[in-house]
Amino acid sequence: MDRRSFLKNSALGGSAAAATALAAPAYAQGNRTLTLVTTWGRGLAGVHDSAQYCADAITAMSGGSLTVDLKAAGELVGAFEVFDAVTAGQADMYHGVDYYFLGQHPALSFFSQIPFGMTFMEYANWFDHDGGRELSDELYSIFGLKAFSAGNTGPQSGGWFAKEMNSPEDFQGLRFRMPGQGGQVLGKLGASVQNLPGAEVYQALASGAIDGTEWIGPWADEKAGFQEITKFYYTAGFHEPGPNLNLTMNLDVYDSLSPQHQAVVENATRASNIWTMSLFMANNSAALQRLQAGGVQVLQFPDAIWDAFGTAADEVVAENMDDEIYANCHESYFRSMESSAAWSSRSEGEFTAQRNRVRG
Amino acid sequence: MDRRSFLKNSALGGSAAAATALAAPAYAQGNRTLTLVTTWGRGLAGVHDSAQYCADAITAMSGGSLTVDLKAAGELVGAFEVFDAVTAGQADMYHGVDYYFLGQHPALSFFSQIPFGMTFMEYANWFDHDGGRELSDELYSIFGLKAFSAGNTGPQSGGWFAKEMNSPEDFQGLRFRMPGQGGQVLGKLGASVQNLPGAEVYQALASGAIDGTEWIGPWADEKAGFQEITKFYYTAGFHEPGPNLNLTMNLDVYDSLSPQHQAVVENATRASNIWTMSLFMANNSAALQRLQAGGVQVLQFPDAIWDAFGTAADEVVAENMDDEIYANCHESYFRSMESSAAWSSRSEGEFTAQRNRVRG
Repeated sequence: MDRRSFLKNSALGGSAAAATALAAPAYAQGNRTLTLVTTWGRGLAGVHDSAQYCADAITAMSGGSLTVDLKAAGELVGAFEVFDAVTAGQADMYHGVDYYFLGQHPALSFFSQIPFGMTFMEYANWFDHDGGRELSDELYSIFGLKAFSAGNTGPQSGGWFAKEMNSPEDFQGLRFRMPGQGGQVLGKLGASVQNLPGAEVYQALASGAIDGTEWIGPWADEKAGFQEITKFYYTAGFHEPGPNLNLTMNLDVYDSLSPQHQAVVENATRASNIWTMSLFMANNSAALQRLQAGGVQVLQFPDAIWDAFGTAADEVVAENMDDEIYANCHESYFRSMESSAAWSSRSEGEFTAQRNRVRG
Repeated sequence: MDRRSFLKNSALGGSAAAATALAAPAYAQGNRTLTLVTTWGRGLAGVHDSAQYCADAITAMSGGSLTVDLKAAGELVGAFEVFDAVTAGQADMYHGVDYYFLGQHPALSFFSQIPFGMTFMEYANWFDHDGGRELSDELYSIFGLKAFSAGNTGPQSGGWFAKEMNSPEDFQGLRFRMPGQGGQVLGKLGASVQNLPGAEVYQALASGAIDGTEWIGPWADEKAGFQEITKFYYTAGFHEPGPNLNLTMNLDVYDSLSPQHQAVVENATRASNIWTMSLFMANNSAALQRLQAGGVQVLQFPDAIWDAFGTAADEVVAENMDDEIYANCHESYFRSMESSAAWSSRSEGEFTAQRNRVRG
């Protein structure tokens, strides 16, 4: 979806008019522009749209008293520089996925994604109602930051390969792009893993610098063009069942906002979270059909590979347990995930299985 | 969660302070109070909280220029009178579930719930990205209304029964509370179905006016106290896999709002949608454990009953196809649902099955 059609179809489209209507003197004095940097190249499907949604919603709801200036990756700082830029106050906030920054703190995995971890709904539960927000505030405040859950891609695909993957041994020596703890898991299987930002993946694959890659899912992957280079596509993956995208503000900037503006940021990001998740879901099915029609082989990993993923993931996730914050997050995250999953399997899981069985 | 603790833990808590800060003359002139009525008794777990979330978010984000005055069911009008009250302009908007109003138009089923219909995420896709909003606008405008998706309970439980349900014949003569098309399905199985608002269900069950009931799920059902009366609880149900709660405004009132305030309403409801859904999910698992510990038998319907639900549901859902709006909604809804489900089964479904298999 391009920005123009989004604005046309949405109540957010009236931001310019709203700004005019609200240009009363008392308010104009308080007008403020916040700079938003991102880990996404401009135009990357879904993820850039999510950052744009946050920017537009904050601007529209504040009637122009807060205007968000979105700078995509490379326009002010590079994709992997946004964490430092917001910590330092060079930008006011960033939209991104925080497994890019595990070098800052390993517990950032829990607020982006751990392998075999939470789905979208499980994360929303944990963050808003089951202890996640409090742990997030503790972790991010170390860096002078405050994070809001602001988007999700839904379950990411296993990725693009030059050939069928039949056993865990097929990962040995494979040069593959996968960030975060998922990438560390593939490393344990013998792969040579690279952590490239999205905007650089196509060129790396096309040039032969990597043998394969994961990115997001059928819709975003098709837009990135990976089907032009590789033809074996695994739809389910162990690594990112529901990666959380944060909008993360400089804490001093957040604290300087009025309660009204804080509520605007809170609700803009929460709205973006479900809007982004459903944007991906709404587009993936048709994109997958197009990929198949174009000659892509759509596959699932065999159980033996899933088992190897599981063993390596347990090792990776347990590696940082000597860090107290990591250990606290680990305990809270797994307790919440297991509780959510127990209910989901008895309700939505049973319903979906029966709907498939009864309706065929 | 009571309102006090919600406000304490949320950025929305600053609404009073924000209202003070914004009491500039130009703004004070435009201050406005909107009355919100609901189909929920005050204090009904989750659903009343959802209406309160919308009210508080709109008030906080508008800095008091829009103040929402929430009147729960019975405080201004009764639960089943809210649709007429907002159409007539007696109240500005209502929060509720619209299968209570199928007498107004049968297509309201698609914007609340049809049996064997959409889950939460499938509905979010359809409404925001796949044609649902346009059809909603067409339908509700007939009544001078505009609807926003504002909450979801997640999959509702099959309900509370005085004995085990072993075959479709066990529904014959059963006096059971179930609203909407789901209730019509039970009617086809021979049940005597009643459509009671939530606040009246406990008394009907306790007095013996009904033999059994469904309400929402373990958390809300436990708070309602049904376990004090009946002991057989079916967790998965055919009737409401993801019932959508709308915040529905009088269309003239909506059109009179500034673009800023329209954006506030849009984003408050979208934020409430995911906040509410995750509130239910976060509480259901622990509540189910408490119910079991208290002697409730937790069961699933056998396949023969699911099959009978399916046959009757197909008949009920097809009954209004001579209405053009209903037929258009039916086509769009099922096309979108089947597309979403095809992708979900290949991604989140496969992941969840593998996570359960690998992690045990």
